[in-house]
Amino acid sequence: MALPKRSEDYSAWYNELVKQADLAENSSVRGCMVIKPYGYSIWEKMQADLDRRFKETGHVNAYFPLFIPKSFLSKEAQHVEGFAKECAVVTHYRLKNAEDGSGVVVDPSAKLEEELIVRPTSETVIWSTYKNWIQSYRDLPLLVNQWANVVRWEMRTRLFLRTTEFLWQEGHTAHATKQEAIAETEQMLEVYADFAENILAIPVIKGIKTANERFAGAEETYCIEALMQDGKALQAGTSHFLGQNFAKAFEVKYAKKEGGLEYVWGTSWGVSTRLMGALIMAHSDDQGLVLPPKLAPIQVVIVPIYKKQEELDAIDEKALIWVKELRSKGITVKYDNDDKYTPGYKFADYELRGIPVRIAIGPRDMQNGTVELARRDTREKSTVDSSQLSLIIPSLLEEIQQNIYNKALKFRDESTYKVNSMAEFKDVVEKKGGFALAHWDGTTETEEKIKAETKATIRCIPLDSLMEDGNCIYSGKPSKQRVLFALAY
Amino acid sequence: MALPKRSEDYSAWYNELVKQADLAENSSVRGCMVIKPYGYSIWEKMQADLDRRFKETGHVNAYFPLFIPKSFLSKEAQHVEGFAKECAVVTHYRLKNAEDGSGVVVDPSAKLEEELIVRPTSETVIWSTYKNWIQSYRDLPLLVNQWANVVRWEMRTRLFLRTTEFLWQEGHTAHATKQEAIAETEQMLEVYADFAENILAIPVIKGIKTANERFAGAEETYCIEALMQDGKALQAGTSHFLGQNFAKAFEVKYAKKEGGLEYVWGTSWGVSTRLMGALIMAHSDDQGLVLPPKLAPIQVVIVPIYKKQEELDAIDEKALIWVKELRSKGITVKYDNDDKYTPGYKFADYELRGIPVRIAIGPRDMQNGTVELARRDTREKSTVDSSQLSLIIPSLLEEIQQNIYNKALKFRDESTYKVNSMAEFKDVVEKKGGFALAHWDGTTETEEKIKAETKATIRCIPLDSLMEDGNCIYSGKPSKQRVLFALAY
Repeated sequence: MALPKRSEDYSAWYNELVKQADLAENSSVRGCMVIKPYGYSIWEKMQADLDRRFKETGHVNAYFPLFIPKSFLSKEAQHVEGFAKECAVVTHYRLKNAEDGSGVVVDPSAKLEEELIVRPTSETVIWSTYKNWIQSYRDLPLLVNQWANVVRWEMRTRLFLRTTEFLWQEGHTAHATKQEAIAETEQMLEVYADFAENILAIPVIKGIKTANERFAGAEETYCIEALMQDGKALQAGTSHFLGQNFAKAFEVKYAKKEGGLEYVWGTSWGVSTRLMGALIMAHSDDQGLVLPPKLAPIQVVIVPIYKKQEELDAIDEKALIWVKELRSKGITVKYDNDDKYTPGYKFADYELRGIPVRIAIGPRDMQNGTVELARRDTREKSTVDSSQLSLIIPSLLEEIQQNIYNKALKFRDESTYKVNSMAEFKDVVEKKGGFALAHWDGTTETEEKIKAETKATIRCIPLDSLMEDGNCIYSGKPSKQRVLFALAY
Repeated sequence: MALPKRSEDYSAWYNELVKQADLAENSSVRGCMVIKPYGYSIWEKMQADLDRRFKETGHVNAYFPLFIPKSFLSKEAQHVEGFAKECAVVTHYRLKNAEDGSGVVVDPSAKLEEELIVRPTSETVIWSTYKNWIQSYRDLPLLVNQWANVVRWEMRTRLFLRTTEFLWQEGHTAHATKQEAIAETEQMLEVYADFAENILAIPVIKGIKTANERFAGAEETYCIEALMQDGKALQAGTSHFLGQNFAKAFEVKYAKKEGGLEYVWGTSWGVSTRLMGALIMAHSDDQGLVLPPKLAPIQVVIVPIYKKQEELDAIDEKALIWVKELRSKGITVKYDNDDKYTPGYKFADYELRGIPVRIAIGPRDMQNGTVELARRDTREKSTVDSSQLSLIIPSLLEEIQQNIYNKALKFRDESTYKVNSMAEFKDVVEKKGGFALAHWDGTTETEEKIKAETKATIRCIPLDSLMEDGNCIYSGKPSKQRVLFALAY
């Protein structure tokens, strides 16, 4: 079934694409998704690359409990405001058979003394553990990451973008000095930005969140912001400098080398299956998914075109040689000679699934020593010498990766506007779509008024923005720097 | 601090080893553990190897919801009996500030219409999904695995062996025919057995569970059983043939190639972080963990011994060459020239952590062109020509892997007894410890009486046991085959 067109109904296009490309679907549990095998295989590639980056920067993985005692959430004043509201609460630990034989019911005698919260994020349970792990400066820094599921009871959910349960990684580090913790926060922002640009092929703007948008319990939240094809922003990763907030809440002190006790400095940082949503919305088109080669579970598919069995036999023989050659270069290749489907069906299906390169080969190609090569990103086709495949494909995959990034960058550059008045601002936010770089007076009041009037939020104060005198587009008060506004997912 | 001796207090030895070797610890949530970085890095190695094996046998990963609607559990009659009792029940989805300012309390207005169960296993939620994924024989087989956390509200918990929350993988497959589903069940048992023997270095007995010990909802449960050093058995993995039970419970039918609809045949299979407990208890000694090289996060550690800085400088130079050489052979090496700890402290610490090979090098070794090599498994030391390290180490690691397995196999063989009377049976179970191979009349009644009298259970009906006429050790009734009894974890 054809996808809705992006230009006609972006939202329907997204939902239908996620479903048809076998990425994810809604489950029978409200707000929780099933990540389907194909979608999960892309997530696994993201995980593997991120995990390698975390380890290269000195982090180790660990695992902390799913449940958080309710009282833990109250220990950090701002954190509880941000996270203790919409969450799954475990109150009982047993079911029993209903007396009327209708099934099972909660056993009222099995009520927990203290309710348990399904973790919405793990700062509290982790810092309560760190209290036992950290005694002296020798125990620092503590550089730990966790791959886990978390639950936030969202009222309006969308596959990958906002789900009640999602998968993520959360890094939680502890340091002896403020300076070191800030350096860690910034380092992880760089890791995320590099991953987004070089692997997801999505250009991002690095910045700092306003106080209003800061993580509940952080002193500073750094983020990377990406632009989707419909002109809305998507926060693709955050890295928080926690100051000594959680150390104070959980009494985590260390003995300094020079003597005396001090509270530990903390950071936390995370990216989630939301990145799947970003990936889909940044690159895909009306024919389906467009995957950067570095994340494609299958990078090259070879489809034989034949009528007679002996034609297939001849193609099989050739194809298996190419498969072997390409695999030896580290390329993931699938040779699809399944006769349950026609070549036409396969072409459409692989387009839908975003396979970067398709090779088609028929009897005439066999005679000519050629194959037909089709790129998913540009949908261009060309006929090439089949003996050159193992030379052509590796560089073609690199070219596709780069082209997908360049296209997204061009789109973002063309959709980023310096605006100097509310009229210009609204023109961007309400009509053109995209990022509006505008002067802002630095107050939460103004930020909230602009949001109330336009739904646009400050995505971040860009780290690389130049100092520039100007006047707030809303209040007219003086400003020294433009900040990045947009409608956002 | 020295570990308790196994011979004096096996249980205390285990608990203390898990703690001191930084494998895991109890969390502030009753029954839930924190898997510490070192323990988690071993689990990651298990995961990577298993995941590769699953993929090589055609399986793909996916992810299904953490929560299961309460009504799902009641759909398969036996399943609900087995799993719907001790479990974490989510009844509310919001907290609010307490009126007295004391923290947060459950918001009574946010009560769920239907309670959600934190998955104890995922058959129900997965088969409710498969209903939509399977229409025709073309959709089969469906070979899916999930890496996930699960929760079973255990009353008595022990780190890794029995915890309220644990990590595992659960495979869930769907097939067109009974024969194919049974073949899958058996294939996965072989995968587990091969993994246990070749990676964990633990010999296992493959068998079938009695009706009494069968997975709730399965028609047949296959298992691998291992023997721990204290003579108790540990179930290390299970593979279930589900028949059409879940297909019938969730109405999953497929259109056959030859026409007509039929219920789908299912399997499920899983191993968990319990394997960490098996690994520890199978091989470790009074000095600490003994890790098979294939699972050791660090296979070789190099410790310099020096007094003067120039001695260290010279060793550094040599050591970095060896590190490079060994790494190029795929060996994980750590060079520990950290000056915060003495060599003696390091030796004990690496012994405790089970690093298979330790290389020590001091000024005299530098002069002689030698190093001291210490094996963790036998604790033997030898002096070897340092120029031969890159030749010696790879084969030494293989030898250690094999030796650890052989030692466990010898222990198991010596601890497996054919018994022909209750007196002999009790002698094994109550005094010697180990496996008792005994005739049993095949009834649940006898099985339960033996358990009540001795605490021993039938671990399995071994797949490779010979047919042999005999008489049940309890009832005297005729029996055609010996079954495997033991006390078990």
